[in-house]
Parts: sequence; C-alpha cells; structure tokens
Amino acid sequence: MNGIAGSPEEAAHIGLDRLFAPRSVAIVGASSDRRRFGGRPIQYLIESGFEGDIYPVNPNREEIQGIKAWPSILDVPGPVDCALLAIDADATQQAVEDCITRGVKAAICYGAGFAETGAEGEARQARLVETARAGGLRLLGPNCMGALNAPARFYGTFASALEDGVPLPGRIAIASQSGGYGGYLLRHLFLRGLGVAQWVTTGNEADIDVGEALHWMAGQDNNDVLIAYIEGLHSKDRLIAALDLARQRRKPVIVMKVGRTEAGAVAAASHTASLTGQDNVYDAVFEEYGVYRARTTDELLDVASALAQGRFPRGPRIGVISISGGVGVQITDFISDEGLQLGEVPEHTQLALRELVPNCSPRNPIDMTGLVTTDHGIMEKTLDAAFQSGAFDATLIFLGITGAAPSMARPLQDAIERAHARHPDQLVVVSVTCPPEMMQEYAAKGMLPFEDPSRAVKAISALYRFGQQFEADIPAPIGLAPACPLGLPPQGKLNEFGAKALLASHGIRSPREKLATDAAQAAEFAAEIGFPVAVKVVSADILHKTEVGGVVLGLSDAEQVRESVTRMAQAIPGLAPHAHLEGYLVSEMVTGGVECILGTSLDEAFGPVVTFGLGGTLVELFKDTVCALAPVSEERATALIAKLRSAPLLTGYRGAPRHDIEALSRAISSISILAAQYAGEIETIEINPLVVLPGNGGVIALDAVIETNTN
Amino acid sequence: MNGIAGSPEEAAHIGLDRLFAPRSVAIVGASSDRRRFGGRPIQYLIESGFEGDIYPVNPNREEIQGIKAWPSILDVPGPVDCALLAIDADATQQAVEDCITRGVKAAICYGAGFAETGAEGEARQARLVETARAGGLRLLGPNCMGALNAPARFYGTFASALEDGVPLPGRIAIASQSGGYGGYLLRHLFLRGLGVAQWVTTGNEADIDVGEALHWMAGQDNNDVLIAYIEGLHSKDRLIAALDLARQRRKPVIVMKVGRTEAGAVAAASHTASLTGQDNVYDAVFEEYGVYRARTTDELLDVASALAQGRFPRGPRIGVISISGGVGVQITDFISDEGLQLGEVPEHTQLALRELVPNCSPRNPIDMTGLVTTDHGIMEKTLDAAFQSGAFDATLIFLGITGAAPSMARPLQDAIERAHARHPDQLVVVSVTCPPEMMQEYAAKGMLPFEDPSRAVKAISALYRFGQQFEADIPAPIGLAPACPLGLPPQGKLNEFGAKALLASHGIRSPREKLATDAAQAAEFAAEIGFPVAVKVVSADILHKTEVGGVVLGLSDAEQVRESVTRMAQAIPGLAPHAHLEGYLVSEMVTGGVECILGTSLDEAFGPVVTFGLGGTLVELFKDTVCALAPVSEERATALIAKLRSAPLLTGYRGAPRHDIEALSRAISSISILAAQYAGEIETIEINPLVVLPGNGGVIALDAVIETNTN
Repeated sequence: MNGIAGSPEEAAHIGLDRLFAPRSVAIVGASSDRRRFGGRPIQYLIESGFEGDIYPVNPNREEIQGIKAWPSILDVPGPVDCALLAIDADATQQAVEDCITRGVKAAICYGAGFAETGAEGEARQARLVETARAGGLRLLGPNCMGALNAPARFYGTFASALEDGVPLPGRIAIASQSGGYGGYLLRHLFLRGLGVAQWVTTGNEADIDVGEALHWMAGQDNNDVLIAYIEGLHSKDRLIAALDLARQRRKPVIVMKVGRTEAGAVAAASHTASLTGQDNVYDAVFEEYGVYRARTTDELLDVASALAQGRFPRGPRIGVISISGGVGVQITDFISDEGLQLGEVPEHTQLALRELVPNCSPRNPIDMTGLVTTDHGIMEKTLDAAFQSGAFDATLIFLGITGAAPSMARPLQDAIERAHARHPDQLVVVSVTCPPEMMQEYAAKGMLPFEDPSRAVKAISALYRFGQQFEADIPAPIGLAPACPLGLPPQGKLNEFGAKALLASHGIRSPREKLATDAAQAAEFAAEIGFPVAVKVVSADILHKTEVGGVVLGLSDAEQVRESVTRMAQAIPGLAPHAHLEGYLVSEMVTGGVECILGTSLDEAFGPVVTFGLGGTLVELFKDTVCALAPVSEERATALIAKLRSAPLLTGYRGAPRHDIEALSRAISSISILAAQYAGEIETIEINPLVVLPGNGGVIALDAVIETNTN
Repeated sequence: MNGIAGSPEEAAHIGLDRLFAPRSVAIVGASSDRRRFGGRPIQYLIESGFEGDIYPVNPNREEIQGIKAWPSILDVPGPVDCALLAIDADATQQAVEDCITRGVKAAICYGAGFAETGAEGEARQARLVETARAGGLRLLGPNCMGALNAPARFYGTFASALEDGVPLPGRIAIASQSGGYGGYLLRHLFLRGLGVAQWVTTGNEADIDVGEALHWMAGQDNNDVLIAYIEGLHSKDRLIAALDLARQRRKPVIVMKVGRTEAGAVAAASHTASLTGQDNVYDAVFEEYGVYRARTTDELLDVASALAQGRFPRGPRIGVISISGGVGVQITDFISDEGLQLGEVPEHTQLALRELVPNCSPRNPIDMTGLVTTDHGIMEKTLDAAFQSGAFDATLIFLGITGAAPSMARPLQDAIERAHARHPDQLVVVSVTCPPEMMQEYAAKGMLPFEDPSRAVKAISALYRFGQQFEADIPAPIGLAPACPLGLPPQGKLNEFGAKALLASHGIRSPREKLATDAAQAAEFAAEIGFPVAVKVVSADILHKTEVGGVVLGLSDAEQVRESVTRMAQAIPGLAPHAHLEGYLVSEMVTGGVECILGTSLDEAFGPVVTFGLGGTLVELFKDTVCALAPVSEERATALIAKLRSAPLLTGYRGAPRHDIEALSRAISSISILAAQYAGEIETIEINPLVVLPGNGGVIALDAVIETNTN
C-alpha cells in the first residue's frame, strides 16, 4: 500500500518509519531538567516504557535522568534510528552533519531561528536541508514540537500537553503544522478520554511536510481517523496523495485549514513560508476527497470523537426521544439544518408508546414526558420499541439535566445500555448534562455522548456523510496524454480568434465566424455566414470591447455590417490609442440559451483549477460559482453544475426548458484537461459567455481569452 | 415605566407583582414528599429564606415540612398574594374558584391535562380562564413549571434544576414557554456560575404569555439581561411591547425561537397551541428591536455570560495576544467571520514588544511565543503595551492549555489581572482550557473566560453589536391615521385597475393607462396615450396573464392595438373558460429601470408585514428578499433595501447608474402603512413588477393585485 518496492517513495517511507517508529533514539542536547526541550522527551520515553535504546548526548554530563550520557552522537555505541536535536539553530548544522557521519537516517529538529525569522534564517535552513538530502537524512522541523507514535511507545516531543502522563493509545492520528495547536488538540483529546495513535508536528517543513506525514499515517494499520491542521502548503501533490490513500483505505479525514478569510490568509502568510492558495480551492479539494473541514476546535473534536466510535448511520432518518417537547422542536430544527430527516414512527409503534405513557407524543420527535426519567422501565421499553421499528438510522436521546442528578443518571444509563445491547447496530447518541466521567462511560459503552443537542446532531450528520462516502465508488483517475508543448507565446494573451481556435480543437465550438480585415471583407463574410450577424473588434489589447463600442449585434444586411466596421475603425483608435487592432470578427448570431462563465486558472497552492458559474451581474453578486482541481471527468462536472444555487436555470425550472447539461459537462471536463495538460503554458482560460442551448443544442463559446505563461 | 396609573395595564402589573413577588404564598396540594410538585416549592421557599407567610393547604395533614397546614385555602388565616396549585387538572377549577372567593389575585397552575391534550382539555382550560378573568385572578400556566424571583426570595416552582440548592441571585431574567427547557437553562447558568434574578415558565399560556412575562421583567430594576424561549405566540402585541420596553431601558434581549425550519415548525405546532408564523418575520422583528437570536444553547449561554459582565466594546478593533501563531491565524478568521477587525498596532508599540521578546510577532495577531507562559512579567508588560496603545476596543488573550497546568495558570491569571486593573475599561476576553473554578475566577475578576476561541470571538461580536445599538437613537413610532373602512369587497380580489387606483391614492403611480372595453376603444385610448403602448387583459380570475396570451408589449400603431385586442377576445375564453373578462388595459410603455417585487401579507403571528426584493427567477432562487413588520418609515425602508445582496443593482454597480432609492423607500413605507392601516380589509398586496427608474425617475407599478379579507 505504501508504494512500490525499491521506489524512491518506499525509500522515503523507510526514513519515516525510522523517524516515527525508531528502535533507538539519541537526544542531542539532552538535559536533566525535565522542563527543557532536551529533558522532556527523555522523561516521556522513560515513562512510556520505550523498549529501544535511549542515548542522551551531552558533553558535560556522565548521566542524564538515570541513563548513561555520551559526549557526541559520534560516540554512541549502537545504531541510531532517530536523533532528537534539542539544540539551538546555531548548533543544528553540525549536529546534522554528525548524524549523517554516524549513519542516522532521521532527525527531529526542535530549534527555532530558521526560515520563520527572515533571510538569514532562511539561508541557514536551506543549507541544513541540502546537507540532510545529500546525506540521506530525513528531517522533521525545524521549529517543531516533534512527534509521538503510541503503539511504538515513541515520544519524540517536548509538548507540555503530555506533562500529566503520556496519552492513552488510541486510533486517532494527527498531523499539525503548528506545534502549539497540535499540543492543544492533543490535550483536548485526552480531556475527552480519546486516545491517540500518532501525532506529528511539522513546523517549518524544511523536508517533511504535513502531506507526507499524513500519507505515512494513512498507510499505518493502527489508526482509523486522521486529523490535519494546515496553514499553507509546500506540496499539493503530497497532500493529495495522502487524501487519496486515506480514501482508498476508507479512513475518515478531518482537516482544519486556517487562513480561510482574507485577513486570516494575510496572518497565515506572515506566520508560514508556505503557499496559501485560494480558500475555495481547498474547499473543492476537501469535497472531492470527502474530507470533513472543521472550522472550530469544538467541531473538530466533536467529529473526531464521533468517528472514534466507528458506527455510521446507513440513512438520514433520525429518531429523537426527548424528555422535553420544547427541546424536541429545537432538535428538529437542527436535523433540518443538517439536511437530515425525522424518521416516521409506524402506527403500531405509536400505539405501543401510547400504551406505555397515555399522554406521550409518540410521533417523532417522541416526547415520553418526564416520566421516563423516574420510571426507567419506560425508557427501556420506549427504546426497544423505537429500535425495533426500524424507522431510524440513528437515535438521539435527549436526557438534559437529569444526567446531573446521580439518582436518575445511573439507572437511566443502565436502561439505555440494556436496550442498546439488544440492538447493537443502532447508532445511539445521548445529549446529556453530566460529569465528564459519566460522559466517558457512555462512550465506553458504545454510545455517543454530547452535552448540547445541536452538536450531537452535527456529529450524526458528519457520520452519515462519511458513511455515504465510504459506500460510493472511488472515481478512476483521469489520464493525461503526454504533453507536447502547444508552443504558445510566452507571458502574453491569445486573442479571441486564437483562443477559440484552440478551444475548437478541444471540442468547444464557437459561432460560425470569420476574421475580416476591413469593412468590405466583413460584409462579404457576413453574406457567407448568413444574416443576422454580430461584429466584434479583435485585439488582445482591449479587455472590455463593449466599452470602446467594439461589439455590434443583430446586423441584418451587408450595408449595416460595412457601416459598423467603418465606425469602429474610426472611433476605437481614439478610445484605445495603444491597442493593436487585429481585425473584425463577423459571427453568426446566437439567440436563446443560458449565458455562463467557464474558466481555468493556476492556484498558487494547487495549480490548475476549473471554475464555472452562470453569467451576469446578479450571479457575480451572489458569488454563485463552483470550482475543482483540474482535470475533472464529465461525471464530476455534472455534479459540480448541480451544486450551483442557480442550477435550476440550466436543469429546468418553472416550465423553462432543460438545457444541454451533457454538452456543458463535456466542455467543463475538456477545458479542465486542457488546463491540466498544459499547466506549464496556459495561465488562465476564460470563456465568457459560454452559451448553453436548450435541449441537445450543445454549448457555444461566444468569447474567449487565454493568457499564456510559458517561461 | 410600567404603564399609566389606574390603567388596565397597571392593574395587570399589580397582578404580576403579586404573582412574582408575593408577600404570602399558599400551596394547594401541599406535600411532605419533596420530590412531588406539591413538596418541592415548599422546600425551596424554606431553603431560600422566603420572608412572607407560607400556607400549605392539604385536608389530610396537620403540618407539612414543619409548617402548619390548612384544610382549604378558604381556611388560611392571613391574606394570600399568590397560590401555587399543585393539583391535577380535575381539581384545579375548584381551587381557582376558592382562590377568587378568598380574594387571591394570582395563581400558578402546575397541572397538565389542559389544552395540550385535545378538545376536552381545551374546554377545561377555557372554563378555567373565564372563571379567573371574571374573578380578577391572574393565572400562570397551566402545564407550567412555575416561577422564581430571587431578589424577592420567591421560589414558586418545582423545577428539579434547583435540587442542589437555590441559585445565586444574579442579573439575568428568563421567560420560557417550555418548563423543561427553562429548567435546562437554569441549571446551565448555575453550572457557569451565573446567577438569575427572575425565571418564569408560561406553559399553556391560558392567561399570562411569554410576552407579558418578559414585559414585566423588562420593567424590573433588579435585572440587566433578558432571555426568552419561544415556540409560538399568543399575542404579538405583548411580545413587541416587551421588546420595546427593553430597548427603551437598554436591556439586551436574547431569544431562542424554535420551529425555525419547516419540520421544526410542524413539531412546534403539534407541541403548542400557539401561532407559529413565518420564521423570517421573527428574524425581522428581532433585528428591528436589536434582539440577539440564539440558535443553540451554547450560543445563548455564551452571549448571556458575556452580557453579565456589562462591558461593551466601543468599536470593532480586536487585539489578539496569542501564545501560538497558528491559533492567531485561526482567531483572525473568526474575527473576519464576525465582521470585526484586527486593530493595528502602532509602530512604537511594535518596537516595545520586540524589545520584550526579540523574535515575537508584534503585529496583530500578536504572538509573544511560549515565553509569556513561563515569564509572566513579559505577559504583564505585553498587555500594558497593548492596552496603552489604544489600538484595541477589546483584547482577546489566547492561553490555551497553559491554563491546565496549575504552576502556570495562577501566575498568568495574576499577571493579566494586574494589567487589567490599570486599564479597567478594556474588555478583556481570555480563551483558556482550565477547570471550571478557575474559569469562574476570571469572570469574578471582570474578564470574560471562554474555552474555544471561536466562541470567545462570537461573544465579543455580540457585545459589540449590543453596544452599537445602545448608542443608536430609538426610532419614533409611526402613527396611523384612524382607519375609516376602505369598503373593499370581502374575500375577493381587486383587479389590476382597482389595485392601481388604490395604490395611486397612496402615492404609487402606474403607467399612463386606460381601461378599454373593446378593440376600437383600445385603439382610441392608445392614440391618446401615445405610441408605443402595451395592452393587457383585465380579469380578477386570471392569475398569470402571459399564459393565456393576455399581454402584448410595444404596439406601435392603432392597427396593431386593434388586432391584439381582437385576438385576445377570441382566444382567451377558450384558454380560461371561467374567467370574467373586465376589459383591456392600454398602457404607456415603460423601458429601462430595475424590476422589483413589493408586497404585503398578513403573518399568522405578527399581522401585516411588508416584503421587498428584486424581480426575476434568479433572485427567487437565491431567496434574496427582505421583510419587516408594517408600518415602516422611509428611513427604515432604505436600510432594508441595503440589506439585499442584490442591492448594488439599485444603488449603482460597475458603472451602472444609481436608481431612485428615495422613491422606492417612499413606496415601501407607503404600502406598509396602507397594509397596517387596513389590516382588517387587505389580506395581501402584490406589486409585480415595480419598476425603479434611474436617477430621480421614481417608481412605477406595472402590475398589481390586492386580495381583500373583510369579514
């Protein structure tokens, strides 16, 4: 699964295996002071019962934390899989060179003072990486908080989050660019009683980045849930490879990507040296790979803890059993917000519930009144009836503050547990206010506990989406033909005529049209094409043709065409003095259809991206566009179109006809393949407007510009 | 403030004062069993040190919970201000009659089995209210959990939320329709260390509803923050009076209104007998009165606890001081999400911060590195510099998990407290993971503690909005002229001609047009109006004229007009056989402008409402409309227009002209006044399209329908 034997990828993974699951560890800059970054990892390794060799390196000590110390890594007796460099930036270069001399294959650099501090630090970091690469040494950091791998009992980190003890081994793996936030997450998982398998902080990412760490984690068998914290990317390919592997292996991924907003992106750019890219492109990537994008830590932790339970509802039908009618209404709102449904309680189940509590509300949301909190037999029978009905894909039980009263809380929990034991496949979520210990008991008994019901519903929704996605087929990758250069002019623009010719060779047709050099030729071409026609000035130097009077529509005879071209030839040089006029495009008039905008661009982080939306000012105001990494298949293009809020105008609405979605999907896919294939030459493509005709009429590019970027 | 002396409103308030601040309480159905609803209130009254007389009423006991019991309320020796009826539905009627005989002015009915159970219960409830009203007795409930008033030491409730002790007196007042949810809120406020002044649950609202309870609370001087939980309304006037009084008194109001979604509204309707109304109308009302609408309990509690601190940032400039650069980026995103800003740190402050920690990031978000967590002097100096800079209207300090390590947490808190003491006006918000006790210490020291930074930012944002609103002038109410009936036909429709005539008399003009009876007259009128003209069939029975070929535009001579009318007269009877054709409207052609839809309707809960949006399919798909309770002033109409996402099409966009917003605002205000004035006669008004012309061209109603509703 982790690549091909003997490949560079495999060699890299051996480096990562040494790094995260070493059999021996040297700590350069080892300290007896457990609060220092040279002291803490030794303490954690000892406490966790690390079974390999530990070699503290410190020229001034004989022994550190009860273990013999060595003056230099060169003096260490046995082989060293991983070196922890707990030293300043100044000393790190020498230490890396010593590691290479000693045959070490992996090192974790904690020290700050590298690329994050400016030009001098950047140079220092560049030299460090060059040395490491030449010497076959994989580097984590610098300026990172290290890593842990619980199944290997490896704790190569100085994170204070572990001060109260190393964590429970668990099935969650975390890759975080930020050490501070990584530690924060780690601590919060412990506070929720959730164990961790692996945890890696990548800091400056001089060598290993968050994508590669995530890829390694996705390939491990001892975790089930992946979490990543991202501020920017050093390599989109590694991230995408990781997401792809996770998808292949059906491992849910939760990502918090910060710098979502303009102000946030500015802050991220000043905090990392990585490429931030456009936020909506991240959304597109995450959507494509089924990644859950968390916006807050609460949300991330809620979804992670839900996933840790490993149960996925098969459908969207939720059952709500509440001790308060008011809260039942509230929960119904939350269920609607998430696009889930209330399951319909069958008639005979309603009768059974009414027999239990005559003045109950037996329709979903089921309100059994406060009686269930005192008569626990009723709760148990209610649940039995609900589970047996088969009406619910997941059941949410709202207990509220009854969980805070020990006299009620314990027997209620027992009653729920007994009913659940008879229907173990049912996803049971409990919304309850109770002490953390009791919360964790619910989890230990295979249920999902939440305090606020809105968060419970969001977690159910996340599980449902993941489940749906695991059922779906993984789309086959789109192969690109070997790219022979197009030979486009560098750093320039293709004019409308050239752009349309290139599009035509990729299956996107334009109106019948000819490029005339003067009024007489224009009139001649118009007669060939057939009236009415449109005439447009052609010039790569004029961005908005209409603003210089360069577009005339609906000309119905040769005389009108001659007049229009003559007028343009006279007026435009005055309005756009520096524009080179290349001619006049005489086109067949296209009427009807829906005007759209279809384009591609190169995202700073992800490269070629295709964007689509309906045309016009209103759509622009509503920001109703979709985008995806190029290339996309026709099938995916169809799915993208459906995501537009304005899609009904294309798919048929209030008696308006259905337009040619098939041709549109082909066009989107086609231009995306063009952009991906020639990402080295094409900077942007913009077809505006692309007219989508009704029925099977196809699509027509009325205007197009291609910006080139050959170096 | 509470109305005019001697008025019915005052009399009502005397009833509520007796109810919520009684000097003597009788408990009918008193019990020695403290778990029963006749036992708990007595226990709470005793524990809270209620200073008035307590009269347990129970024919079978001599003494209850150490207090002498009486066989009937008729036997109680002293006057009784408030009776708690802890008895079944069957016994309640007699108890209410006895109360009236005894001269009691207020009673709280706990018992269920009234309107919530169906027709029989409804009848029982109706009789109860009739008796109470005739006898001058105010009723809370039935089917409610009672009320408490901490400053009066009155605990007329059996809520289990008080089992662990009566709450801290505080400055928050709560009115909840749901007893279950009311108790849930109460408990969660205690868990956060927040005290409560008053708490009222209104249950079936046979007499007192949530609006009246809220109004009484708004008039009290011993609370500062009002919270309401609403499922539906019995009287919009009482709710609006309450919101108005709260606004006059600058008391922030938080409302959770459930049944937001379609499914939720169905659940709410089956749970309450009240009017649910359209959810967007609630939004409009809340926006008008500056109410914060909470969607979740977490959100409600976060905002309530922030308000309890009583500090409001004067501007939107937030300072972020973080121990993690990554979290700083995240917080920047949250700040942008809320429409707040990062304050700009002045150059000299940046220099001072760099002197403190050379490799810090002194620009907002300020990252002082982990050093501040160990060197607390640096934290204190950083805060001093930040506060002194005057760059921030509020400061958010992210401490993360350092709060979980007691060795760091305490000195950090002390350092922050000392700096804050030197700048007590600064709103200081701390995002920290620490035990609940320590959280409450922050609050006690005048800071706002939150765990998740996203929630901290949302709370700051809420405070900022409330502060802005308290600064703003309260708009003067719009007076309506005394309504002399319009004399519209009942349960019918005004045809286009009649509707336009009524609109014209309210200042909204139509195109120049005349109603012709046949083709010849139409041609004659067209010549008078001037060509080109439009011709439309007029019939109250035809909803969509275009579908029967009943609209022709741009007719340029008399012959075309004659032909068109002749064609309509022949074709329409076949297409709409039951339609009575009233004539043919010949109109001046209006070109240019932006087509809008302007209308009014009667909301089930709130009555007359005005709705406005741009016309066309796209705007419909994007649901881009605004609404407000009628009547609205021109000023408010202008503010409503600005809230549309499509507003730039009216206000000027990309060189497109500004349209006549003034005339549009006048039209919106004018039709809203018309709808409010004649709410008894007019069911709906729809002007579609209303054309807004560029510049000062005014607005023109091209088509209009008015549905009437006279009984």
